[in-house]
Amino acid sequence: MASANVSLQVLPLVEERKLNHVVDEVIEYIKGTGVKYVVGPMETTMEGELDELLEIVKKAQKICVKNGADRVISVVKIDYSTDGVTIDEKISKYIK
Amino acid sequence: MASANVSLQVLPLVEERKLNHVVDEVIEYIKGTGVKYVVGPMETTMEGELDELLEIVKKAQKICVKNGADRVISVVKIDYSTDGVTIDEKISKYIK
Amino acid sequence: MASANVSLQVLPLVEERKLNHVVDEVIEYIKGTGVKYVVGPMETTMEGELDELLEIVKKAQKICVKNGADRVISVVKIDYSTDGVTIDEKISKYIK
Amino acid sequence: MASANVSLQVLPLVEERKLNHVVDEVIEYIKGTGVKYVVGPMETTMEGELDELLEIVKKAQKICVKNGADRVISVVKIDYSTDGVTIDEKISKYIK
Repeated sequence: MASANVSLQVLPLVEERKLNHVVDEVIEYIKGTGVKYVVGPMETTMEGELDELLEIVKKAQKICVKNGADRVISVVKIDYSTDGVTIDEKISKYIK
Repeated sequence: MASANVSLQVLPLVEERKLNHVVDEVIEYIKGTGVKYVVGPMETTMEGELDELLEIVKKAQKICVKNGADRVISVVKIDYSTDGVTIDEKISKYIK
Repeated sequence: MASANVSLQVLPLVEERKLNHVVDEVIEYIKGTGVKYVVGPMETTMEGELDELLEIVKKAQKICVKNGADRVISVVKIDYSTDGVTIDEKISKYIK
Repeated sequence: MASANVSLQVLPLVEERKLNHVVDEVIEYIKGTGVKYVVGPMETTMEGELDELLEIVKKAQKICVKNGADRVISVVKIDYSTDGVTIDEKISKYIK
């Protein structure tokens, strides 16, 4: 079982009309990594090993820069468990 | 259109085996308020007016106490816009 | 003893060169409220009753709007305890 | 100049009476790394290169486990800038 859930919210400091585009690029990148993920209204949550997920968080900063942001503020939440932790166990009962 | 999206993650300091129960009580309460909401793996996001959503955040702390937590740590994210902001505009394209 | 510590980080979506000015206005406002507070590099933490602190969080959003931001993203952390919680008990031993 | 500020709040799921001890171990570890840091009431902020700071965040999870937590929730904030970003520029004017 995966050892971590990591949520990422990026706030690249770009003009507001470009904000969604940069966020979409980050989500596209996450999709391409092959990790399990769920897009939420304020953050995207990923499931996997802590190492790989923090590597994705790091890379996401650079994708924002590549798309025009000189500065990026991010909020990252980590749920790390030696017994394993899954996205499904947290939300499956709330999805109709 | 609603002026705010507010995400709430509560971490009541209770024994781990009771954690899910307390979180469920908070989500049950949010459901009962009638605001639009989405449950995610790390936070629940609500849509509405800033006043009413912060009132719900406050009440959520007390629900944790009522369910056995002497102390509660919460992470709240606010997205506030004078032009209005919706959950749908952020996630609809990512939901299959 | 105060029942809560609340940390606030505001990210008004304005041009980067105006960002510090808007954040300063929010800190100035917090100073004027009379609550105990500590300014940190990523957030300002306040000590008081949950009600008054969430009222300040709400007002801070409007101060950002008044200073030119049509949209504001904030990260708020709450530490709420029925036994009381203070800023000093957390940081006094780390301040030389 | 350093390219990043990273704030870390760890919430190891241990009995409340052990919470401060585990948090202290994490701060002790950060101190030992040699990076510039400031301890705040809700998070510790570090200054350095993004790579090294995320490495510290990762290691901090394992220190919590080593000190008795089977599960750790963390909140991490990243301020990343290609022009460099410092703790001093953000708080020096607020320190008397």
